[in-house]
Amino acid sequence: MNIPALQRRLRQFAADRDWQPYQTPKNLAMAMTVEAAELLEIFQWLTPEQSMQLDDAQRTHLGEELSDVLLYLLQIADHSGVDLDAAVERKLAMNAVKHPPLKRS
Amino acid sequence: MNIPALQRRLRQFAADRDWQPYQTPKNLAMAMTVEAAELLEIFQWLTPEQSMQLDDAQRTHLGEELSDVLLYLLQIADHSGVDLDAAVERKLAMNAVKHPPLKRS
Amino acid sequence: MNIPALQRRLRQFAADRDWQPYQTPKNLAMAMTVEAAELLEIFQWLTPEQSMQLDDAQRTHLGEELSDVLLYLLQIADHSGVDLDAAVERKLAMNAVKHPPLKRS
Amino acid sequence: MNIPALQRRLRQFAADRDWQPYQTPKNLAMAMTVEAAELLEIFQWLTPEQSMQLDDAQRTHLGEELSDVLLYLLQIADHSGVDLDAAVERKLAMNAVKHPPLKRS
Repeated sequence: MNIPALQRRLRQFAADRDWQPYQTPKNLAMAMTVEAAELLEIFQWLTPEQSMQLDDAQRTHLGEELSDVLLYLLQIADHSGVDLDAAVERKLAMNAVKHPPLKRS
Repeated sequence: MNIPALQRRLRQFAADRDWQPYQTPKNLAMAMTVEAAELLEIFQWLTPEQSMQLDDAQRTHLGEELSDVLLYLLQIADHSGVDLDAAVERKLAMNAVKHPPLKRS
Repeated sequence: MNIPALQRRLRQFAADRDWQPYQTPKNLAMAMTVEAAELLEIFQWLTPEQSMQLDDAQRTHLGEELSDVLLYLLQIADHSGVDLDAAVERKLAMNAVKHPPLKRS
Repeated sequence: MNIPALQRRLRQFAADRDWQPYQTPKNLAMAMTVEAAELLEIFQWLTPEQSMQLDDAQRTHLGEELSDVLLYLLQIADHSGVDLDAAVERKLAMNAVKHPPLKRS
């Protein structure tokens, strides 16, 4: 996935629709949360086991909601000057310190 | 960003901590939404203008929350068999149909 | 608002539809969050000023989403044995300690 | 629960701290969603069965998060001119039409 290229496409998409005034980081964060909850809704009444065995229609729906979250996430990073690759590596390192691996005998 | 490589690292990270039983798609969707709301919290009392001018500490915090959302998102896709690249392209095409660009004279 | 009476009505409503197996506190918490995000969606592209001047259709929609959140909230409290009146008073006292009022000269 | 009295107390609490400029319905909706997700976090790694058997510490924590959601919900209704009692009755009637009870033989 070429993130800078996707971010440029999303900027152009917004510009072609005069959406820039709406796309403050605050509003994009709201939109991302709304999409995360739409994804959550897919799973809300499923058992843990059912959530591991989605059918094709559910998987397609899930792919749409994952995309919606991801596209807003990329726009928030772009509009706020966050380097996502660097942020992810930093967070993975923080997580490894916070949660050390189990010691196996 | 090499998504399949990241997904493999996240699988290994979970295996090294015996977290697999917790990582159903249902639970991962809950965790992703929790992280999305932590990101939202950064912006909740800011004006739209303030949200466009984060300082360095806020930007670092934002990068951490964006990473948390993204890492759960990648795990949901991985555990549910969703091809993210294909899903994103499909969604971008759907969005272009749903929201046609403005006609400029 | 008679909360115990509402909780009894919601229990009967679920029983009349055989919904009890789905209504674990975990699932009800997911459903409440989904409804909170539907409420958030009403405001996502509005300016702060516009959010203070909803028209009648928006206010009616808001009332529906507020009700959805509240009805799940009442069910979570009911199914988890939380006394909402006591919890609210305790939280208000905590908030008053955490955020002392401004001293006026 | 005396909702108008609670709403008056919350207005006074905000006024005593000069918080009114922050409390637009848009911002309050964000805050309510953030609190809903904090409640969700209590349940995210629990099994459905565990979510039905909270211990005292978990129940106390749940009561705090339920209160946080409810207090923002009451403020949104207050600041937007929504009559919560009427809205809840209307929504219950809508739900009864949308989801008819099962016919028992």
